Amino acid sequence: MADTVIDLRSDTVTRPTAGMREAMAVAEVGDDVYGEDPTVNALETEVAALFGHEAALFCPTGSMANQIALQLLVSPGNEVLCDADAHVVTYEIGAAAAYGGISSRTWPAVGADVDPGVVAGMIRPDGYWAVPTRAIAVEQTHNRGGGGVIPLDTLREVCRVADDAQVAVHCDGARIWHAHVADGVALATYGELFDTLSVCLSKGLGAPVGSLVVGSTDKIERARFIRKRMGGGMRQAGILAAAGRYALAHQVQRLADDHVRAARLAEAVAPFGVLATDVRTNLVPLDLTKAPLDAPAFAAAARTEGVLVSVLGPRTARLVTHLGVDDVAVSRAIDVLTRVLRT
Amino acid sequence: MADTVIDLRSDTVTRPTAGMREAMAVAEVGDDVYGEDPTVNALETEVAALFGHEAALFCPTGSMANQIALQLLVSPGNEVLCDADAHVVTYEIGAAAAYGGISSRTWPAVGADVDPGVVAGMIRPDGYWAVPTRAIAVEQTHNRGGGGVIPLDTLREVCRVADDAQVAVHCDGARIWHAHVADGVALATYGELFDTLSVCLSKGLGAPVGSLVVGSTDKIERARFIRKRMGGGMRQAGILAAAGRYALAHQVQRLADDHVRAARLAEAVAPFGVLATDVRTNLVPLDLTKAPLDAPAFAAAARTEGVLVSVLGPRTARLVTHLGVDDVAVSRAIDVLTRVLRT
Amino acid sequence: MADTVIDLRSDTVTRPTAGMREAMAVAEVGDDVYGEDPTVNALETEVAALFGHEAALFCPTGSMANQIALQLLVSPGNEVLCDADAHVVTYEIGAAAAYGGISSRTWPAVGADVDPGVVAGMIRPDGYWAVPTRAIAVEQTHNRGGGGVIPLDTLREVCRVADDAQVAVHCDGARIWHAHVADGVALATYGELFDTLSVCLSKGLGAPVGSLVVGSTDKIERARFIRKRMGGGMRQAGILAAAGRYALAHQVQRLADDHVRAARLAEAVAPFGVLATDVRTNLVPLDLTKAPLDAPAFAAAARTEGVLVSVLGPRTARLVTHLGVDDVAVSRAIDVLTRVLRT
Amino acid sequence: MADTVIDLRSDTVTRPTAGMREAMAVAEVGDDVYGEDPTVNALETEVAALFGHEAALFCPTGSMANQIALQLLVSPGNEVLCDADAHVVTYEIGAAAAYGGISSRTWPAVGADVDPGVVAGMIRPDGYWAVPTRAIAVEQTHNRGGGGVIPLDTLREVCRVADDAQVAVHCDGARIWHAHVADGVALATYGELFDTLSVCLSKGLGAPVGSLVVGSTDKIERARFIRKRMGGGMRQAGILAAAGRYALAHQVQRLADDHVRAARLAEAVAPFGVLATDVRTNLVPLDLTKAPLDAPAFAAAARTEGVLVSVLGPRTARLVTHLGVDDVAVSRAIDVLTRVLRT
Repeated sequence: MADTVIDLRSDTVTRPTAGMREAMAVAEVGDDVYGEDPTVNALETEVAALFGHEAALFCPTGSMANQIALQLLVSPGNEVLCDADAHVVTYEIGAAAAYGGISSRTWPAVGADVDPGVVAGMIRPDGYWAVPTRAIAVEQTHNRGGGGVIPLDTLREVCRVADDAQVAVHCDGARIWHAHVADGVALATYGELFDTLSVCLSKGLGAPVGSLVVGSTDKIERARFIRKRMGGGMRQAGILAAAGRYALAHQVQRLADDHVRAARLAEAVAPFGVLATDVRTNLVPLDLTKAPLDAPAFAAAARTEGVLVSVLGPRTARLVTHLGVDDVAVSRAIDVLTRVLRT
Repeated sequence: MADTVIDLRSDTVTRPTAGMREAMAVAEVGDDVYGEDPTVNALETEVAALFGHEAALFCPTGSMANQIALQLLVSPGNEVLCDADAHVVTYEIGAAAAYGGISSRTWPAVGADVDPGVVAGMIRPDGYWAVPTRAIAVEQTHNRGGGGVIPLDTLREVCRVADDAQVAVHCDGARIWHAHVADGVALATYGELFDTLSVCLSKGLGAPVGSLVVGSTDKIERARFIRKRMGGGMRQAGILAAAGRYALAHQVQRLADDHVRAARLAEAVAPFGVLATDVRTNLVPLDLTKAPLDAPAFAAAARTEGVLVSVLGPRTARLVTHLGVDDVAVSRAIDVLTRVLRT
Repeated sequence: MADTVIDLRSDTVTRPTAGMREAMAVAEVGDDVYGEDPTVNALETEVAALFGHEAALFCPTGSMANQIALQLLVSPGNEVLCDADAHVVTYEIGAAAAYGGISSRTWPAVGADVDPGVVAGMIRPDGYWAVPTRAIAVEQTHNRGGGGVIPLDTLREVCRVADDAQVAVHCDGARIWHAHVADGVALATYGELFDTLSVCLSKGLGAPVGSLVVGSTDKIERARFIRKRMGGGMRQAGILAAAGRYALAHQVQRLADDHVRAARLAEAVAPFGVLATDVRTNLVPLDLTKAPLDAPAFAAAARTEGVLVSVLGPRTARLVTHLGVDDVAVSRAIDVLTRVLRT
Repeated sequence: MADTVIDLRSDTVTRPTAGMREAMAVAEVGDDVYGEDPTVNALETEVAALFGHEAALFCPTGSMANQIALQLLVSPGNEVLCDADAHVVTYEIGAAAAYGGISSRTWPAVGADVDPGVVAGMIRPDGYWAVPTRAIAVEQTHNRGGGGVIPLDTLREVCRVADDAQVAVHCDGARIWHAHVADGVALATYGELFDTLSVCLSKGLGAPVGSLVVGSTDKIERARFIRKRMGGGMRQAGILAAAGRYALAHQVQRLADDHVRAARLAEAVAPFGVLATDVRTNLVPLDLTKAPLDAPAFAAAARTEGVLVSVLGPRTARLVTHLGVDDVAVSRAIDVLTRVLRT
């Protein structure tokens, strides 16, 4: 891929900055399976504190962090409720069922527009007859929901409903940093709502690798065990954790820039009737039903002019802003994409 | 339980008739794990023929028949779609996920009012990124949907949608006999729509034990293997199969009587505003939200007068007609239940 | 299969006697999923009492009874130890791993010659690093061990070793009745050794269908739940339980006859150098390495003369005596088999 | 841990050298989930070539690489054979059963002294009755077998036996580099024997994180999918892969030094009667049965003098040489350990 390519496919494509590389190069490390990597330990302490939880565990991916959390909250044969477009039942290759034996029922794919009453109506009590609901999973911001932000009051109501039924709540917070920046809600305010959270250092924050699962000391101790079973017990992981610490220190507030740039992209394509939802954060979901070309053709045309976009379905595509996309790149992308849509 | 008790909890409580007992007493048997039980073999051949399929397999329960079918159609980590109230994700103790590793996403709990467009919108294609949809499960008649009958045209459209996407369809036909009698649709007409069906001899048909999974020769050969893994490889099962053959010969058409009796019950309680849905077959679902007493109190009051009803939730209950409930019993039940509702 | 055929393949081929059929025909029944089948309840109480345990649960097969017991004792990712020829890791289609997520390590296939020291050396403690051992499974009598009987003192030593390590012991007692009769050890004496047992009514005891898992009240309550997940929650199972009660009352002590008959068979074939081990109960294992024909040829030759035997491997076969094989049949079988071996 | 500590617990504690850190700092990276990380791709190509296979896949840990391989070779409910001390059934937290549904039977814990005849005798054919054997797993060098090296002829015979039975063979080659150096067998010679191998960059080779699973193009394509399900799909993993490439280029032949140093340690403690087996590579297994103190006391005493050793059991311990232990350190360790043993 030439350097001049503008990659709007995902914020997972970000490469470490010079400062982050320097932090990795000098990182103090140890054997994290023995619990002796000082940089990993420092990162885990920092992230737990940010969310007001007791403990956190570094994992190679957000999928593993999510799946460990689900396995902590739901025993085999019990169920989790989530929306039909949730990352945990869409992009994690069926791990909840295949590895955790976890049954799932889903409310309709409404992205961030969660209806606590609908969730409440789906919860099933413990007992001899029906599969009991043990956890509810929400996603903040919502990936397939176009980066939408679930309002704090909605989350509070979902958690109240869950609490009344003695059901746990997990937050897939891969992009919770974006919600924090977009809505001005403190991370600790989010943290206090959930039994477990996963948070990702490798998307908007720009670290090369790594997510954490956050929760109580007791849960994270069990999580360490599950992480080994999942094959996630890395050794001198401090190299990666150093990048994560750097990201937390330097690359959270700059997400606001990504949001402004995504809004510029959205504004530019909106007149073509292809904006799937309002844009709140760094994702720009496109519905090309009314466009003159379908999603694969759209992506191919953009690619020939050096702009990469994701194809999500025959008529759906996505643009994502991130660390690797500056104002100039956005201007050039707007130029290319509007030209393609005008064809 | 005194003989004078009227048991409206479920059609699973039926006891074998004298004729059925006689059939069991004289049944020719063999070792069915060796494939040598002549009565089981005859039953399997008969049921396969009824539904126009190549083969069938006798199982100890409908839950096992459903789960074998799902395991046939969906590999671990892939997904089945069904409604949020489907028996397969509600009453089978999470077996699809716990034992089959099968991921599930659900459309809203609409009972028999399936919307093929909603189903179509949930199907996900094969590929590297998302969990692929491998099967759709429908339920005919629909248990938690109040015994509702999915119209034949709806089923055809669901199957067309599935076929377009190369997705299999399983029918949980525990009470498909009721749909056959209520809508006058031939069993073979239903049969040709589905890759696999489960059918139950032990509910409305009145046999003590047994269900079958129905499908192609190849599928049923693999099903025989899965049945052993599930612990369902019984030996001289011909004793039970004899009851099933008797039921098929003598107790299918009489389901029409159960439907008439359920309609009488429905008509009697409707003025109290407690009928949850229209009654089409032998289930009478009650919504006691507007009643003077909640579901447990309703059931307790009826019980003291010798009428048993099922409690499904704090405000939901159910009446079921079956082989053990005649016209006189229905009259007496109406008398008791209306008195309780009037309190 | 003509009536004159002598079926020595397995004791699973037994057909119910007239008395047993009569018991089934008049059995009082109810819905066992509701816990209301009086005959099932009586059988469960009787069997629990026989083994000095609090409770028991009726299951459609011995495989299911074993697997429920293992799922009770061992959580997913933990391990059971057993011998490399144990029924639970050989003939149950991998259910312990596939459905229970249970890891297994095995000691060599020594049949009934269990070495408690070897077992002790394999136990692994709880902890962060290695898979902890949660249960040991023994098999009495031992199926692939030629019906061998593990001496009581050996069982006591295995259980002491397990107890010291806080590891549970399950006994696959499908043919424990044979050990009881052969060694004169009370069933309750066996019972007090084990956390759980499975016992089978459908092999030597001659009932058409059914096994029970035996254990504490707490365990059996959870077992009832697991049984439903396995698809083993039958309804009017009292029909089958009645046969089981009849078998317990009339067909335990007669196993001594089967043992005598097996000894006669063993004595007759021993001069040909084909007896694999000493014969203690009703199984006669053959090693045809020195015979003039291999196992499939041996079985085929016997079959043409009306005697059925099991082929277990290229050079291994098995004869089994049971309810359906009387003294005359044994004499005729001896005549046929020795003639075949003489060829 | 003070810098002056000599850490003989494991070769997993190695920290990256300056050269390796430099390689990581300048690594070219991309999104490896998209297959676009050039350094990962180069590493995968190199490792595949080393072993004469078509393809390889980078994983966060050796446990994940092993488990992916087992899931490739063995479907749920089928079995793998290995020794009772194999890493795959000991230190991987039951993942084969818990996540892969894979049944296991084990031959006795003989470390590198594998008997192909014993293995052959345990293989079970495909069929309706017994769990079929689908794979055999060997471990080279053998971790709990004291770093023993399975002779090439033995491996060839095991593979011949497997091939005759159409059973696959996986090699857990976490320390196969040590066997290569100790026995002078080419990596490609090992590679051609096995259907799949796992190899580790993070033990003797000294990279901070990473293993690879090696096999055919078709298998590795499926492995990529399973890796995502396991939560191992990292993004800019090239940072880690760069360390692996550096290790392959600079740190394989130096393993000979570790072997010499281990031999020195072995020679020093042998007179105390505590050497558990001959020492061939970098592991020195101790059996403290005849020592004046048990394993925890031995480790504690050594620790107070700045030497760390692993406790494997009440009377078993282990010394390991690696990148971080030079000749001076070995001399000092010998001084400390012999003094402790002399007490």
